[in-house]
Amino acid sequence: MAGNSFGQLFRVTTAGESHGPANVCIVDGVPPGLELSEADLLADLKRRRPGQSKITTQRQEEDQPRILSGVFEGKTTGTAIAILIENQDQRSGDYTDIKDKYRPGHADYTFDAKYGFRDYRGGGRSSARETTARVAAGAIAKKLLARDCGVRIVGYVRQVGPIIAAIPDPAAVTLAQVEANVVRCPDAQAAEKMIALIEQVRGEQDSIGGVAELVATSVPPGWGEPVFDKLKADLGKAMFSLPAVLGVEFGSGFASASLRGSENNDYFTTADGKIVTSTNRHGGMLGGISSGMPIVLRCAVKPTSSLSRPQPTVTCAGQPTTIATKGRHDPCLLPRFVPMGEAMLALVLADHYLRHRAQCPRK
Amino acid sequence: MAGNSFGQLFRVTTAGESHGPANVCIVDGVPPGLELSEADLLADLKRRRPGQSKITTQRQEEDQPRILSGVFEGKTTGTAIAILIENQDQRSGDYTDIKDKYRPGHADYTFDAKYGFRDYRGGGRSSARETTARVAAGAIAKKLLARDCGVRIVGYVRQVGPIIAAIPDPAAVTLAQVEANVVRCPDAQAAEKMIALIEQVRGEQDSIGGVAELVATSVPPGWGEPVFDKLKADLGKAMFSLPAVLGVEFGSGFASASLRGSENNDYFTTADGKIVTSTNRHGGMLGGISSGMPIVLRCAVKPTSSLSRPQPTVTCAGQPTTIATKGRHDPCLLPRFVPMGEAMLALVLADHYLRHRAQCPRK
Amino acid sequence: MAGNSFGQLFRVTTAGESHGPANVCIVDGVPPGLELSEADLLADLKRRRPGQSKITTQRQEEDQPRILSGVFEGKTTGTAIAILIENQDQRSGDYTDIKDKYRPGHADYTFDAKYGFRDYRGGGRSSARETTARVAAGAIAKKLLARDCGVRIVGYVRQVGPIIAAIPDPAAVTLAQVEANVVRCPDAQAAEKMIALIEQVRGEQDSIGGVAELVATSVPPGWGEPVFDKLKADLGKAMFSLPAVLGVEFGSGFASASLRGSENNDYFTTADGKIVTSTNRHGGMLGGISSGMPIVLRCAVKPTSSLSRPQPTVTCAGQPTTIATKGRHDPCLLPRFVPMGEAMLALVLADHYLRHRAQCPRK
Amino acid sequence: MAGNSFGQLFRVTTAGESHGPANVCIVDGVPPGLELSEADLLADLKRRRPGQSKITTQRQEEDQPRILSGVFEGKTTGTAIAILIENQDQRSGDYTDIKDKYRPGHADYTFDAKYGFRDYRGGGRSSARETTARVAAGAIAKKLLARDCGVRIVGYVRQVGPIIAAIPDPAAVTLAQVEANVVRCPDAQAAEKMIALIEQVRGEQDSIGGVAELVATSVPPGWGEPVFDKLKADLGKAMFSLPAVLGVEFGSGFASASLRGSENNDYFTTADGKIVTSTNRHGGMLGGISSGMPIVLRCAVKPTSSLSRPQPTVTCAGQPTTIATKGRHDPCLLPRFVPMGEAMLALVLADHYLRHRAQCPRK
Repeated sequence: MAGNSFGQLFRVTTAGESHGPANVCIVDGVPPGLELSEADLLADLKRRRPGQSKITTQRQEEDQPRILSGVFEGKTTGTAIAILIENQDQRSGDYTDIKDKYRPGHADYTFDAKYGFRDYRGGGRSSARETTARVAAGAIAKKLLARDCGVRIVGYVRQVGPIIAAIPDPAAVTLAQVEANVVRCPDAQAAEKMIALIEQVRGEQDSIGGVAELVATSVPPGWGEPVFDKLKADLGKAMFSLPAVLGVEFGSGFASASLRGSENNDYFTTADGKIVTSTNRHGGMLGGISSGMPIVLRCAVKPTSSLSRPQPTVTCAGQPTTIATKGRHDPCLLPRFVPMGEAMLALVLADHYLRHRAQCPRK
Repeated sequence: MAGNSFGQLFRVTTAGESHGPANVCIVDGVPPGLELSEADLLADLKRRRPGQSKITTQRQEEDQPRILSGVFEGKTTGTAIAILIENQDQRSGDYTDIKDKYRPGHADYTFDAKYGFRDYRGGGRSSARETTARVAAGAIAKKLLARDCGVRIVGYVRQVGPIIAAIPDPAAVTLAQVEANVVRCPDAQAAEKMIALIEQVRGEQDSIGGVAELVATSVPPGWGEPVFDKLKADLGKAMFSLPAVLGVEFGSGFASASLRGSENNDYFTTADGKIVTSTNRHGGMLGGISSGMPIVLRCAVKPTSSLSRPQPTVTCAGQPTTIATKGRHDPCLLPRFVPMGEAMLALVLADHYLRHRAQCPRK
Repeated sequence: MAGNSFGQLFRVTTAGESHGPANVCIVDGVPPGLELSEADLLADLKRRRPGQSKITTQRQEEDQPRILSGVFEGKTTGTAIAILIENQDQRSGDYTDIKDKYRPGHADYTFDAKYGFRDYRGGGRSSARETTARVAAGAIAKKLLARDCGVRIVGYVRQVGPIIAAIPDPAAVTLAQVEANVVRCPDAQAAEKMIALIEQVRGEQDSIGGVAELVATSVPPGWGEPVFDKLKADLGKAMFSLPAVLGVEFGSGFASASLRGSENNDYFTTADGKIVTSTNRHGGMLGGISSGMPIVLRCAVKPTSSLSRPQPTVTCAGQPTTIATKGRHDPCLLPRFVPMGEAMLALVLADHYLRHRAQCPRK
Repeated sequence: MAGNSFGQLFRVTTAGESHGPANVCIVDGVPPGLELSEADLLADLKRRRPGQSKITTQRQEEDQPRILSGVFEGKTTGTAIAILIENQDQRSGDYTDIKDKYRPGHADYTFDAKYGFRDYRGGGRSSARETTARVAAGAIAKKLLARDCGVRIVGYVRQVGPIIAAIPDPAAVTLAQVEANVVRCPDAQAAEKMIALIEQVRGEQDSIGGVAELVATSVPPGWGEPVFDKLKADLGKAMFSLPAVLGVEFGSGFASASLRGSENNDYFTTADGKIVTSTNRHGGMLGGISSGMPIVLRCAVKPTSSLSRPQPTVTCAGQPTTIATKGRHDPCLLPRFVPMGEAMLALVLADHYLRHRAQCPRK
């Protein structure tokens, strides 16, 4: 179905390069009557944008979205919503080196191998700049989910390098806690250490990886479809479609490999007249269908590949050389990853919300 | 697009319940002229089938596939291939208890929440029995990939509980090494310990989790599509669509969270006149597009939820009770997971092979 | 998405050749709780099957459907429904001639051009035998539409050769009127002439074309999606996907080309408190969205290409020759086309019913 | 899959309303390396734009496309191409009347019935203004088809009201012949009469319907997929997705209903060493797969619904009233329909070209 679209009923299609004139997004299938303005998109775009704090890239982008269609008198009409986000800080001069060399860890080589050539300006289509479009679309999904189902989506940084935050209850973390510091970690003590580490690695012309945790609460039971479009399958795809994600896990995740069934199973019980599980090692889905418990997932995000120190590589012709990326890159991707991950979580949930009510409308 | 189909061009649609008359699979988009017979499907079906060894369930299923269409005079015709696999060992009597109670870790509750009721016989559509259809389809994908590109797909058990196999080079593991023992672990020493552990947990009416590693070699560079249909995204979806998978990682995966860029980056170099990386922490994809290096991924598979010991749960009406699953369940899912994971890996690669050559045919 | 699937949410995938062991159909996305048995499928299959009357082919096929999944205790479960229809009267001997020659008007040549070779037995996948699967799936769609919305679908033969039936009100035609004669034309006088003409052309070793009219009443306003998935667009695709259809028109159709706006426009008015149009030249859709008026469409079906008289053609090697198709072909496709057209109409409506309620659920 | 996307591999997604700020189009799946500039899109946009001649609407729109992505240094990169076409002549004042009344023949009522309300400015999303995006996308498809396969696509007006052009050989019509007069009819004598008739009906505050004929030559045999995605099925959908199309036919079309098999069949023969048919009543497809003969189809386009004379209708509240559309509407849609129809024909062919070479690459 062509790789620049995502979702079945709540469907996003994006286009745009890092240093082209604009990024564009068409969101199809949004129910009519949802109040929507550009301000609704701006909140998350600001959380994603470069230059937002001392520990992110200092590149400046306004990321001002413009809704071109699908909204009339302040409400969605049910027809396709087009969003335009013009690129401003392009400084193409910074990127001439990557025309002839393959940056380690980037898609320069694979794009050349696939297409025969590439738009080398700032990574072109492989740049994370395309995630602006996702974040804008995700803001619409969040609004729909909140209005119709009370779903609340919060992401935060769980780990940076060896520093792991203590999060007693993922479902209790609030947006305010997350936004209380520039690294977006609700554990204030860990956050301080993370920030110090990020500044240190930048000083050492290096970068550092980490883990983001994403949580959706108040998701009703029943979303997701057997057998291929399990909710966890579509969430897995969504997260791995984001740049730099090398791992995804739900609930007990990789830790479950070391556990026995008697240790890993969650037991059903009741609370407030509803069937729930007393623990949530399953991460909110059973058989790939939401259980009503909070959806909890983690993404492993690799350390930024661009380093300002010289790294060995080859030219496009295969000759050994070195490359050093000139400044303005995030020493750690995690703080800006949080809104991207939230957006993808929201998009999957909105899609499965519509899919579920198509087949199984509430009586 | 309805949840029982997978893939865009090489497309699989399945149907069938654990205790219904049959499982069915329609494979659409297979190129014409591929030699194919039921024997080609049988090899992997035997690796998947229950009752194959002392450490799997003792349930007996022949899993004899019957090709109903799309093959003429021993070759695929290019039209849809239908495969029928009749269910034989149904013993519905074993499952009456699950009609009225929700098994911990299973989809009984979520199916009821979604659909209002469920086919409770052996888990119905949520049973892993549906993976027979995937394995049959995957065998066709494997054959196509091997014939056209020399792609070789091998999976094996990397971890059972705390026991982790030593695999010096994932790309060097052979099918013969994997099939040399019943646990499908190419590290013979680890395999012995794994088998002992699995027998122990079964004796303790318990189960154990693990990790499977899947490897595809000789995948040409260039497969996968920006931005949503990255190869890693579709592989992530494929793996998470399998029952019991709680985590997926590529290359350095979650370990990359603790690494610096200077430690995690793979450097480009040349070998035999081709551009390669000197290490493979990226797991064979950059920017979501295959790099030509081996694709390496791992799946965390939770411990079997069904235990023969009593576990607390509730009835469908919400009353506290206990449930003990009567026999014939795998104490560890990993040995039989291997062919399932391989099949999904093959299906994704076959699909992206066709997608790539549609847009970028070789000159 | 591979050509053997149809529909987005109510989705049908089929496989099977004319002379293979069976035709198979997987219907995905059916809402749970719909009462369904094989008897429900049989009614329309009997209307489609060969050998049903003196004016159809005398080939005999039982067309006994077997539901393999997705139905439990007499109700759909919401999971994929697989239907198997075994082929019985295969008589491959009749078709040896077509192995080496291209039948005029058939797909023998185009299949060879596409795939390099073909299953030549009875036309293989290009045979109208594959419509058994569609008719079975359509019966499920009809049942859902009738239960949930009171939609009624009736098709009939409007024209055979130069004989055109007088149908004062398409929306008033009943199934009983249609089934009152073997040609399925509710105008009894025209029917007699049609039957006589069909017998005459068969006697002359010839065939004859015609037009079928299909009507859906009680379709609520609002189904169909701008801009590509207009209801008329998906209906157009559905009808043209049937063998032998060379023309499709809605409402005033091709006649509108000769009309002025003042003659062709239907005017809005009210009836029983609902907004309706006083005439129905628009055929029940405006802007591609159902208007609440009856959906009326016509399909032009070409005369059967197979003739028992010799026709000039070439061999697969391009040498001039002649071919005469041995017996057992319909001299006129129309009577058996009716249930096929109804099935496709039902499938499109069921799909758009689900799509509409996903985006715009009733308040 | 949401209704604003079309095609599987060569995939177009559009957004935009008649009187919003812009129309947008994302074209996904275009092969890399195709030379492309805005000038390539402009040619057909000029043929589509209002105000181009005395017999079209006098509304003025520049329709200047801007390529925002997917093209680098004059060539397509293989990534998504975004095209922006800003709306200029909006004059919303002209349309206030349609806020409260339902225009006969338009989608005002059905949009309200579907979505609960509508963007009433100039028809909003139901306006034919959205076809600018299709025409821009179609220009890319035409260029790809011409470069790779020599496919040539030409459309023209075959009929206006009772005036039918004499076209001895549809496959011989040239673009120059079509563009030689403002009604786009290559039969100069008929063209004159058509123009006179159009001016007459406009003088009478009326409109007139017609038929467009679309031809694609040099389409290789083998494009199209059994059984649902027949080339004729996807072409049928494409044409019916255009506004005002009430009928579509291929080859002998509805005329085949009156023919015998012996009259309608085309016979295979050879020419220049290739297998061809001596006549082309089949319209270039057999079994829904291209035969190598010219693809010939006709679209019946209804008379413009908007009339400057008062027409009876109801208010949104159901009260009887009248409505007269103030000026600036095409008295006959056909001349401007031609590039729209060509665009959709090109989009379907480009998609099936890629689909065919994915499954059946040339040896």
